[in-house]
Amino acid sequence: MLRVEHIGIAVKSLDISIPLFEKLLNAPCYKQEVIGSEQVQTAFFQQGETKIELLESMLPGSIIERFINKRGEGIHHIAFEVADIKAEMKRLSEEGFTLLQQEPTLGADNKLVCFLHPKTTNGVLIELCQEIK
Amino acid sequence: MLRVEHIGIAVKSLDISIPLFEKLLNAPCYKQEVIGSEQVQTAFFQQGETKIELLESMLPGSIIERFINKRGEGIHHIAFEVADIKAEMKRLSEEGFTLLQQEPTLGADNKLVCFLHPKTTNGVLIELCQEIK
Repeated sequence: MLRVEHIGIAVKSLDISIPLFEKLLNAPCYKQEVIGSEQVQTAFFQQGETKIELLESMLPGSIIERFINKRGEGIHHIAFEVADIKAEMKRLSEEGFTLLQQEPTLGADNKLVCFLHPKTTNGVLIELCQEIK
Repeated sequence: MLRVEHIGIAVKSLDISIPLFEKLLNAPCYKQEVIGSEQVQTAFFQQGETKIELLESMLPGSIIERFINKRGEGIHHIAFEVADIKAEMKRLSEEGFTLLQQEPTLGADNKLVCFLHPKTTNGVLIELCQEIK
């Protein structure tokens, strides 16, 4: 893994949380993006080489809504940038980690992504991501 | 804030989680450290400009043990490096965030630290840290 590409935070309302994180981080939200495949709206902040990604559910029953119903708002996942996502998926699978996708899917911010099941990573939802060139 | 200095992850056992994260991150644990004031043992991994900090409780009733009892193992906090922790504490307090310390305290890895109450930050426990020169 190369670096922490972003940290995903589940929130109920971007309208409330964008100004809150602008104050907290003392940095502007520089982009918003809808990810239809994951039924979320996102908002991004840059902090050094890492992004903070706020995630608001767009539909009842989405992954983010279920997360908030169970645990409340808070940190949802850590995403690591990798150089070759397919090679990293193969390596991690062989090491005994459980992949949530067998092929990379299209994520936010022009990335190929794959998630690891938190049961094999001490309860931490891990995303691998590789920028699409 | 300057960058994500580290991400803290609460684990039950460093003996189990250090080799697990070495496999996951494909990087060695480069340091272990006891923080007496917080009753935790820590283990560090470098990922780009950010550290992953595993946290194991040393004493029954510690903050980390209570976190795990309530929520299970997982991401505990995000730490942001700041240039001037006292100035940042003043700024955040004036913006309406609740500080958990009124003065910076000595944290892991030769840092002055201060935490923000998650009730004012969308459920995210935020640490400010400044390296002691």
